[in-house]
Amino acid sequence: MITLADIWEARNRIQGRVHKTDTIPSNSLGDMTGSKVFIKAENFQKAGSFKVRGAFNKILSLPEEKRAKGVIAFSSGNHAQAVAYAARALKIPATVVMPPWANPIKLKATRAYGARVVLYGQTSLDMASKAMEIKENESLELVHPFDDPMTIAGQGTIGLEILGAVPDINSVYVAIGGGGLIGGIALAIKSISPRTKIIGVQPVGSCSMLASRRAGRVTEIDQCVTIADGLVAKKPGENTFLLADKYVDEIITVEDEAIKAAMLYLLERMKLLVEPSGAVSLAGLLSGSVPLGPKSLAVLSGGNCDPGFLGSILLESSR
Amino acid sequence: MITLADIWEARNRIQGRVHKTDTIPSNSLGDMTGSKVFIKAENFQKAGSFKVRGAFNKILSLPEEKRAKGVIAFSSGNHAQAVAYAARALKIPATVVMPPWANPIKLKATRAYGARVVLYGQTSLDMASKAMEIKENESLELVHPFDDPMTIAGQGTIGLEILGAVPDINSVYVAIGGGGLIGGIALAIKSISPRTKIIGVQPVGSCSMLASRRAGRVTEIDQCVTIADGLVAKKPGENTFLLADKYVDEIITVEDEAIKAAMLYLLERMKLLVEPSGAVSLAGLLSGSVPLGPKSLAVLSGGNCDPGFLGSILLESSR
Repeated sequence: MITLADIWEARNRIQGRVHKTDTIPSNSLGDMTGSKVFIKAENFQKAGSFKVRGAFNKILSLPEEKRAKGVIAFSSGNHAQAVAYAARALKIPATVVMPPWANPIKLKATRAYGARVVLYGQTSLDMASKAMEIKENESLELVHPFDDPMTIAGQGTIGLEILGAVPDINSVYVAIGGGGLIGGIALAIKSISPRTKIIGVQPVGSCSMLASRRAGRVTEIDQCVTIADGLVAKKPGENTFLLADKYVDEIITVEDEAIKAAMLYLLERMKLLVEPSGAVSLAGLLSGSVPLGPKSLAVLSGGNCDPGFLGSILLESSR
Repeated sequence: MITLADIWEARNRIQGRVHKTDTIPSNSLGDMTGSKVFIKAENFQKAGSFKVRGAFNKILSLPEEKRAKGVIAFSSGNHAQAVAYAARALKIPATVVMPPWANPIKLKATRAYGARVVLYGQTSLDMASKAMEIKENESLELVHPFDDPMTIAGQGTIGLEILGAVPDINSVYVAIGGGGLIGGIALAIKSISPRTKIIGVQPVGSCSMLASRRAGRVTEIDQCVTIADGLVAKKPGENTFLLADKYVDEIITVEDEAIKAAMLYLLERMKLLVEPSGAVSLAGLLSGSVPLGPKSLAVLSGGNCDPGFLGSILLESSR
């Protein structure tokens, strides 16, 4: 199993290739909640989300000769962009299986980074099987979106940066899709600061990690219905389930309306654009489902928001 | 006349009360322009724009007994919010004359900071005369939005921060309304780094500083028609005109469409919200009207954007 040492190695491996993003205190969130609230701005990360951390860590850890043949990934969006971005930076070919319903700006950006895009499937399970097929046929290396130890270790570098910026942080809110982000962050933080609480947040219409936790094993849900298009995993990973089971204190859920409200708050008050998935952690923090300690932090996982969607919720809110 | 020493004093006076905002390099703007491009993120400033710098500097420089009676200002928005914010922080009363057409979120925020708002007039000249009347009747101190040497000195602290972050900056783009922002920045930068070019940018439908420069004296224009609601001065100040005359290398203009395009670029690519006035400097930088040196910077003056307006341009762009 992955350990803190893997995350430390990941940190050294990806340094200089990804941004060490800002950890920003917010007075207005502080006034509203009575806690000192910080946000970790991964929406400013290269390619617009935290996903480049895991992508670079996985690809850089491959032996040179395997890496040169190229990599394959499957993703509804941010991981696709991240793998395409990292592959271009490392001058290797990339193929990404994306669903036909993918957010158009994520699709466009993935192609703009030079990746070959294969449009296939409706769910993450469909895409995964297609990706495995291409991987076998073309001898490519898979960069899993969340369940590969190297992916998880890359995302865990965020946990190290959070502790570096706010060593006495009391609670950290992280969105959960497949669980790679929270798996890495929770492992990093709990290994160093076991009293810090890790709170996972899922959209109420897409909460396979919560269902799995309740069942005591990895469990597939019937469908994923949420505006948070980055968090539509029908089941968590085997590795991420175990990490969440061991290190995540609580998993809470939020409604789509709360996600929109958090997005608009970040935009109008803090002048930050995040995508729906990127606002889920703050929606959880603001939900009051868990009492806040003196210092809390929400990881804003990404900023790749569809302009048409953003336009429509802004008009809705200003009516 | 105001000197670099006044700006240095302003820096010491307002330190700790305002944010030292980030100077952020942008790879994507660099790729697009071939110059290394930085942005100065005053949209993250307290109360959402650079205006708090001048407001704090002016109010803190008043003798204690005058300050205690309260201050008055006139403004279509950002200066209103800034004076209201600073007055609340310093526990003194504030009155602000705003036009009935003011951006609703700026009006709401000004009231939320506890200021008395007097709705009056159509133009900055109408508002100014009303403010002078109230000032006389109630013995208040005027915090001028742009032409007071203390206001200008406060805004000039941005120039010191720019040189601190990028000592060899070649050109700095600054939007011009009444001219307080560019007057202070140009004085600071030219006093220390005379070879740095200062480029003023005005909306083509609201360019009284350019008209004044061409006429060789302060000149009033017939009307101000632009989406940049923070830059609607029918004439520049006497002090700001002289500073621009002496220190600003060129004044260029941009169309509303270019302002919108710059706003959307900042939002979609850099995940930053700015208001139309806050994107004017970048629109000027991207216009190509002036050849770019190796290192260029645009001051993003504020982020208080009306959600309905933003929603409508997002939907327009995504069609």
